[in-house]
Amino acid sequence: MEKTIRSDLEIAQQTTLRPISEIAKQVGLTDADYDTYGKYKAKLADGLAERLATKADGKLILVTAINPTAAGEGKSTVTVGLGQALHRLNHKAMICLREPSLGPTMGLKGGACGGGYSQVLPMEEINLHFTGDMHAITSAHNTISALLDNHLHQGNDLRIDPRRITWKRVLDLNDRALRNITIGLGGAAHGIPRQDGFDITVASEIMAVLCLADSIADLEERISRIVVAYSYEQQPITVKDIQASGAATLLLKEAFRPNLVQTVEGTPALIHGGPFANIAHGCNSLIATRTALKLSDYVVTEAGFGADLGAEKFFNIKSRIGDLHPDAVVLVATVRALKMHGGVAKNQLAEENLSALVEGLALLEKHVETMDLFGVPAVVALNRFSSDTDIERQTVLEWCRERKIRVAESEVFSQGGAGGETLVEQVFEAIEEDSQFTPLYPADLPLTQKIERIAKRVYGAAGVHFEEKALRELERCTEQGLGHLPICMAKTPFSLTDDPSKYGRVEGFTITVREIRPAIGAGFIVALTGNVLTMPGLPKTPAANTMGISEDGTIFGLS
Amino acid sequence: MEKTIRSDLEIAQQTTLRPISEIAKQVGLTDADYDTYGKYKAKLADGLAERLATKADGKLILVTAINPTAAGEGKSTVTVGLGQALHRLNHKAMICLREPSLGPTMGLKGGACGGGYSQVLPMEEINLHFTGDMHAITSAHNTISALLDNHLHQGNDLRIDPRRITWKRVLDLNDRALRNITIGLGGAAHGIPRQDGFDITVASEIMAVLCLADSIADLEERISRIVVAYSYEQQPITVKDIQASGAATLLLKEAFRPNLVQTVEGTPALIHGGPFANIAHGCNSLIATRTALKLSDYVVTEAGFGADLGAEKFFNIKSRIGDLHPDAVVLVATVRALKMHGGVAKNQLAEENLSALVEGLALLEKHVETMDLFGVPAVVALNRFSSDTDIERQTVLEWCRERKIRVAESEVFSQGGAGGETLVEQVFEAIEEDSQFTPLYPADLPLTQKIERIAKRVYGAAGVHFEEKALRELERCTEQGLGHLPICMAKTPFSLTDDPSKYGRVEGFTITVREIRPAIGAGFIVALTGNVLTMPGLPKTPAANTMGISEDGTIFGLS
Repeated sequence: MEKTIRSDLEIAQQTTLRPISEIAKQVGLTDADYDTYGKYKAKLADGLAERLATKADGKLILVTAINPTAAGEGKSTVTVGLGQALHRLNHKAMICLREPSLGPTMGLKGGACGGGYSQVLPMEEINLHFTGDMHAITSAHNTISALLDNHLHQGNDLRIDPRRITWKRVLDLNDRALRNITIGLGGAAHGIPRQDGFDITVASEIMAVLCLADSIADLEERISRIVVAYSYEQQPITVKDIQASGAATLLLKEAFRPNLVQTVEGTPALIHGGPFANIAHGCNSLIATRTALKLSDYVVTEAGFGADLGAEKFFNIKSRIGDLHPDAVVLVATVRALKMHGGVAKNQLAEENLSALVEGLALLEKHVETMDLFGVPAVVALNRFSSDTDIERQTVLEWCRERKIRVAESEVFSQGGAGGETLVEQVFEAIEEDSQFTPLYPADLPLTQKIERIAKRVYGAAGVHFEEKALRELERCTEQGLGHLPICMAKTPFSLTDDPSKYGRVEGFTITVREIRPAIGAGFIVALTGNVLTMPGLPKTPAANTMGISEDGTIFGLS
Repeated sequence: MEKTIRSDLEIAQQTTLRPISEIAKQVGLTDADYDTYGKYKAKLADGLAERLATKADGKLILVTAINPTAAGEGKSTVTVGLGQALHRLNHKAMICLREPSLGPTMGLKGGACGGGYSQVLPMEEINLHFTGDMHAITSAHNTISALLDNHLHQGNDLRIDPRRITWKRVLDLNDRALRNITIGLGGAAHGIPRQDGFDITVASEIMAVLCLADSIADLEERISRIVVAYSYEQQPITVKDIQASGAATLLLKEAFRPNLVQTVEGTPALIHGGPFANIAHGCNSLIATRTALKLSDYVVTEAGFGADLGAEKFFNIKSRIGDLHPDAVVLVATVRALKMHGGVAKNQLAEENLSALVEGLALLEKHVETMDLFGVPAVVALNRFSSDTDIERQTVLEWCRERKIRVAESEVFSQGGAGGETLVEQVFEAIEEDSQFTPLYPADLPLTQKIERIAKRVYGAAGVHFEEKALRELERCTEQGLGHLPICMAKTPFSLTDDPSKYGRVEGFTITVREIRPAIGAGFIVALTGNVLTMPGLPKTPAANTMGISEDGTIFGLS
């Protein structure tokens, strides 16, 4: 296993990349279909998805996971590895991923491009500014903010109530000191004083909108209806009302074009968009997924967090809005994470513990059942770590086989696509089974019932408690004609419940809905079950402290 | 004059651009020397300037102007037009410009790429996100901020005094409500409460540093010594102290590479960097200018504001630090602006007024004298507007000829390069004269005397009044070994004096220096003569209100 000793960054830097034009040609694109951004990145042309509309779609494979733990599951790594395995077996395959955010890169993670021999490249560029999409979203969002505060300052014709402005500002950084601020201080020349705050850019509704729009016109339409504030008469004030939709759309013109890159093994990948997985739906852009379906026979994509949040939203929000038909779902689990869900502490994961492992498997079973509810055939991918014992691995595999659950081991981290070939076999079996995908609830189900259905069927809750304020807001949404929108649950990813400390397959619990935030531009109603931090903080020793460029030009400190 | 009725944006959109690879080839670049960013933009390769170091330099022509007025002078337009004229006459010429900032684009100006038939293209992309340099600077700057506030929050080992943090945050927007803010509110989990504020990105010292560094290593070295705060013991805290220099440099890796584009007539242009012209030196990057000098026989570049600020800093700061030898200077004036400096109100500029014109010419004469002080041969470019009467134009031309001042009319706005051919003749005469360029003061002159020399010789002041606080800070700079640095004057551009309402050639006035800010990373000492607004506001009706993309994909609202 000498290979695995190399760091992600070393593997990335030692890979010889092919010119992006070759990758584009491989998926049937002509020169007019894209623009290169440097040698190894390209942006697809405006309207390419529309031009390809009459082509048949490839098969859509979603990679999701059990609830994440501090042990790490490797969902992105499996997504990249599965795409590479398909490519290696001579199938026309593409990967669709989300764009990394600079905040976590500079904070804890140092990067988000998969790992080992299953990475998307050039990881240094993808992890840093990539093609500027995140910055364009920051600009568009803050232009709306500046126009809003300027409206207040210049006479406030719309009678915006400064106490009821819901549109915060954004930066693509982890910066806790900006969570709660006061602005407009310093006197009459410097704006109207009010409370405000910054979210991280990926939490912007602009990001969610970009990821669900199907054309520039749709993008502008969605942006224009975003509610940014309420008037003194409690009437909603939209982006259109403050005359900011045109400029914001213009600022997003290039960002709306999906980005083409390649993996360590030259498999084509579209990396585009990356909304938060709590207050938003946590999937890459619809336009990238649609384009990939037209350009390839198999599209492998992922959704944020575990299956209870990521897959649920992929099915109920993205697939519904985008009219997608998922053909198979891969559920990533690891021995380590299963043991944590079975009660083992993080510092004892190296020890073999079969009873905890079996305990943790109950959570996996819950997620397999959930995939059944959506009618999408599932495959469990046991993502191998070097610390797993043979008997632990066999326990998982046999446990699955006894229950007729498709399962395959993944060794894509250490072996690249070759380590995902048995997973491909299982995925093909799942696809053969013919997905009967259908969302969990119809659009016309009342909003409270939509939330209850998700909580009961997906989380396994006994019921939902709506706090008074949330209930009132849901009624208001219904009155305003928003009752047909899907629900976007904001819940801790670490547990099926709304308590992050409750691991494993918990049952008989109640989900508490504390707050409702309509995201009218994106087209969903956010239901918050707890305090969601939309601006992360940096840790004691941030990854940024040890990043840099050495004298010979080599980048260090990313991972 | 049917041509001139078309808007800047229409002209830009109706121009057929050549692939940027052709433009690159024209200046002798091979494929390895650049990366394309879309079809019409390229970034030069890392270290290209160093590889070209042994080549001889071309001639360096600086375009500056009389003090700007609300009437508009067209300095960028003349810069582009002169480059086009040289190119048209089959000379190897390149243009070096600053990158536009989104703030003014969204606010008043709607763009900053020259005008009419003398524009750099693709103006829509250059005006919006271009190749992301401005966003990279925003990210690098705010990463330093986040690391600083995180240091405070995580125990403050460096004993940073939260009342003495000099490093504000930045955004590339006009947003007055962010000038004065309080951050870190909301309780112990959300940082340390303190006063803060946002500047516009171009006012960041990171921007000034990027524009004066000659290599990535020098960039990191300069960033590392930037002072961001003082400790409780009043010791300076640098970017290096908070371990942020590596990450900030890494975030600027691509932004440090100059951007190649073309003009309406296919003349190659490098557009790179764009620091404020008040608290910074207001010129495009040194690395772009140096590279252009190696790649062409004539480089036409500009500096911000009028000659009293822009040219002075170009000579005393940029040329000194970068060891440049300016060969000629073009002083742009217009009949309209001269009349304003002669006392005519803006709404009466359409009327012929010869006595006011002659009055205004005294200001032009002052700037010509100043160029003489630096030993650089000057040419006056009378930039024509359609409202100018023949007798007004003749008055200016004759006035110059009587004083043996080289002068030529410029019609580059309406005619492109063809309208700049007589200007080329005069510029060639100036170059023939052999510039005896030398900075106005030696490095070892005491700081107060440097300021006095600029005020007396360049502005024509009778003297300088240093406020107590400024004097103390200058002494502190000298004690800290910073006495050898050049001065960067922050003064109103509208007047030779520090009072923006005093037009024309004022004499016998006193300049008041109120505050001193050492910019140790950039390598100059900023002397502020008044309140400088480092975060502009939006006007009553911002340009952004009427921008957008039409149904057929055409952009509107930029200019």
